[in-house]
Amino acid sequence: MCCALLNRLLLVSCLLPLCLTPLSMRAVPQKRHVDLLVVGGIVVTMDAERRVIENGTLAIDGDTIVAIGPRADVETRFISSRRLDATGKLVLPGLINGHTHAPMTLLRGLADDASLHDWLNNYIFPAEARNVTPDFVAWGTRLADLEMMHSGVTTYADMYYFEDDIARETKAAGMRGVLAETIIGFPAPDNKDFAHALAYTEKFLNHWKGDPLIHAAVGPHSVYTCSKDLLAESAELARRYHAPILIHLSESKPEVDESRAKYGVSPAAYLDELGFLGADVLAAHCIWVDGHDVALLARHDVGCVHNPSSNMLLASGVAPVTQMIAAGVRLGLGTDGSAGGNHDLDLMEEMPRAAELQKVTHRDPQALLAEQAFAMATIDGARALHMEDQVGSLEPGKKADLVLLNLDTPDGVPLYNVYSQIVYALKARDVETVMIGGRMIMENRRILTIDEAEVLHKAREYGDRVRKSLDLH
Amino acid sequence: MCCALLNRLLLVSCLLPLCLTPLSMRAVPQKRHVDLLVVGGIVVTMDAERRVIENGTLAIDGDTIVAIGPRADVETRFISSRRLDATGKLVLPGLINGHTHAPMTLLRGLADDASLHDWLNNYIFPAEARNVTPDFVAWGTRLADLEMMHSGVTTYADMYYFEDDIARETKAAGMRGVLAETIIGFPAPDNKDFAHALAYTEKFLNHWKGDPLIHAAVGPHSVYTCSKDLLAESAELARRYHAPILIHLSESKPEVDESRAKYGVSPAAYLDELGFLGADVLAAHCIWVDGHDVALLARHDVGCVHNPSSNMLLASGVAPVTQMIAAGVRLGLGTDGSAGGNHDLDLMEEMPRAAELQKVTHRDPQALLAEQAFAMATIDGARALHMEDQVGSLEPGKKADLVLLNLDTPDGVPLYNVYSQIVYALKARDVETVMIGGRMIMENRRILTIDEAEVLHKAREYGDRVRKSLDLH
Repeated sequence: MCCALLNRLLLVSCLLPLCLTPLSMRAVPQKRHVDLLVVGGIVVTMDAERRVIENGTLAIDGDTIVAIGPRADVETRFISSRRLDATGKLVLPGLINGHTHAPMTLLRGLADDASLHDWLNNYIFPAEARNVTPDFVAWGTRLADLEMMHSGVTTYADMYYFEDDIARETKAAGMRGVLAETIIGFPAPDNKDFAHALAYTEKFLNHWKGDPLIHAAVGPHSVYTCSKDLLAESAELARRYHAPILIHLSESKPEVDESRAKYGVSPAAYLDELGFLGADVLAAHCIWVDGHDVALLARHDVGCVHNPSSNMLLASGVAPVTQMIAAGVRLGLGTDGSAGGNHDLDLMEEMPRAAELQKVTHRDPQALLAEQAFAMATIDGARALHMEDQVGSLEPGKKADLVLLNLDTPDGVPLYNVYSQIVYALKARDVETVMIGGRMIMENRRILTIDEAEVLHKAREYGDRVRKSLDLH
Repeated sequence: MCCALLNRLLLVSCLLPLCLTPLSMRAVPQKRHVDLLVVGGIVVTMDAERRVIENGTLAIDGDTIVAIGPRADVETRFISSRRLDATGKLVLPGLINGHTHAPMTLLRGLADDASLHDWLNNYIFPAEARNVTPDFVAWGTRLADLEMMHSGVTTYADMYYFEDDIARETKAAGMRGVLAETIIGFPAPDNKDFAHALAYTEKFLNHWKGDPLIHAAVGPHSVYTCSKDLLAESAELARRYHAPILIHLSESKPEVDESRAKYGVSPAAYLDELGFLGADVLAAHCIWVDGHDVALLARHDVGCVHNPSSNMLLASGVAPVTQMIAAGVRLGLGTDGSAGGNHDLDLMEEMPRAAELQKVTHRDPQALLAEQAFAMATIDGARALHMEDQVGSLEPGKKADLVLLNLDTPDGVPLYNVYSQIVYALKARDVETVMIGGRMIMENRRILTIDEAEVLHKAREYGDRVRKSLDLH
């Protein structure tokens, strides 16, 4: 049957019911009113089919995406008095920074290119002991949040001290956070011992219960800084509250050597023996993991976070990213803290580094593809945080966490492949608009939730204070 | 003698001659009028003493720096009707991109994550054969120049086709260039054979003789794409005109294996045998060089250029940067072209990558320091280009090529160490003002010499054209 004939038949069959229905009863399609339509962008969904919708539109109601598709389809079904024009821009899922220590931004560049021992013992530990207060972490978090929002981050996982203050600031900034109070086997700036840390953490978990943005978590620092009891009791507390557990895992070779000497097994295997591993654990770094460790992490559905800038800058080593992906490990991407481990919180820069580091290490330009690196910063990052039902892709039912990237810049032209452009060519400077849970957080590069000038002023003040506290000039 | 007494004696001895001189004859210090004073910045000189002048001022006359020092000192001696306030900003020597193929920016992202063979034979070579014309290289160069200026690059070394058109655009952009016409052992988009290429190049060298910004050069592509005659005659032509010679050297392992099989020696040793190596050669990559090669490059004063992003992305390997520096090789930094080898021309991003790649490779956080990476992008880059008498540092007698970086951003605070901040924390987005040879090229992030909107429009047009030429959709 020729197309013209088929079309005519279809037309007739469509019109017939209308003709036979009295005018008053005709089904006028009702459009649903929603809070916002994001209209006309190149929508990179990161859904299971990896759909890229050329002239796409999202319908957003409350904090949730209710529809996504070609513009004409969505506009047939939804209407809104608020429209965000995304024509000629990329619309991406908000990026997920899987590992950081936000307030350390106030210490970035304090002592670089130093050996880890010198850096920790002569700079970071004394600086933290003398300076870290609730006020310090509040301003440090604001500075960190500014930087993360500018690079399109909408969700981040954090481990530091006074985490309750960090949570308050994160919520005020409008960001989504998985925020873990650090529990460590020596006196910390906030809690002098384990008992106090546990009590603080329990109060912290209670405080944020049910919050739509803040996921309070428990952060036993690592196998090498925490006793067996500390690890076990931290996990027990977290599980009683159904809270995530954040930990550093196998970041350095000495850490693994020490674990093998002390416990006879690797840090991952040791945690497995303790019953620590599970689908609520987020493990940062995982550089010095062997095949057995990788299998354990996959089997227990542990989320892992790769931090390429930090791993390179601290000379920690190269994580077996391709092996972990092949084994089905939930693997996200992180910046680490911006003192020592990194100097920025720019997740846009971690994507190319992740790809480049695997390529050069394996001497294979296809070792990690642009699309995979972008997945690590979005849907796979969400899987690592066990939040893939809420964030990480643009799909109906998920939170309206999204980013608009400007393509009208030298970085944006010409455009042959969206994943390649995002990962290798576009920069944080091209992030134009950021929305979290349907709320506009950054619009045309202006942060709406934080007073940037005030933060810069305070950061300089803290810089002076830290320098003085260490007798630096 | 106590200080107070000493001061009093000095005061008396200073005043005495004045008192004894009749009023009319007193030496009123004459201030010299200059074209511009850049006032009050944190001036990072990169001179031999690595002076960082906190409240520094530069006096600029014509295209040259005539004085630099503490503000009070310079202002005592110089006066100008034009003043550029740099208070609270970093003032750096203009950055030097030691290796690129500017027009390839129009091909960036055309086919990524592909094997080198697939990428070259199925995408780049056909795309070049069907699209590269004088108009293509002109628009490609404009796009590349925009991007480079935005990242603080003031001088760049280029190798491509129709280099005369590239030179014209570079000069129009106000940039300094060492620009080499590529000579290669097969038909190129501009010249069908070696004879035509040589004739074109000689005309090109004549055309730009004596230009203050453009240094026309000869670019025999590499040992693996050029015959012995081609290499020798290219070098002979260059030397007849005292022009620089640009070449790719030991970028891949197969290239070195092939050279050893064919000539019995490494590419560097082969070039040495031909009398090719000298203080006028700029060799890009130098990844697969052994101790003997490094010694040769050092002994012949060859300039070398490290391209970390490209080397990682193409999985080429890790250059022995620390070994080359130790051997005294003139070693600069480059982006490579932005198709395949890289996707941007952002030299600010090459600095951290250079440091990170050496650190992680040597498992030593002190393998390459921030200051060394910054030197590679400035004074050592100038040494690689054999132009250290003209550019690469802020010193009297050198060209007024400089960059102002804004510190009033989240990337700029707090500031503990300038080198660390520049290399690890600050980004191209913080580059605010760029001056080349005393001429303002970018002011408050606005490019003054190129119509940005027009370039973006043309780049999109060329994107469509290239896609169609390869039957891509």
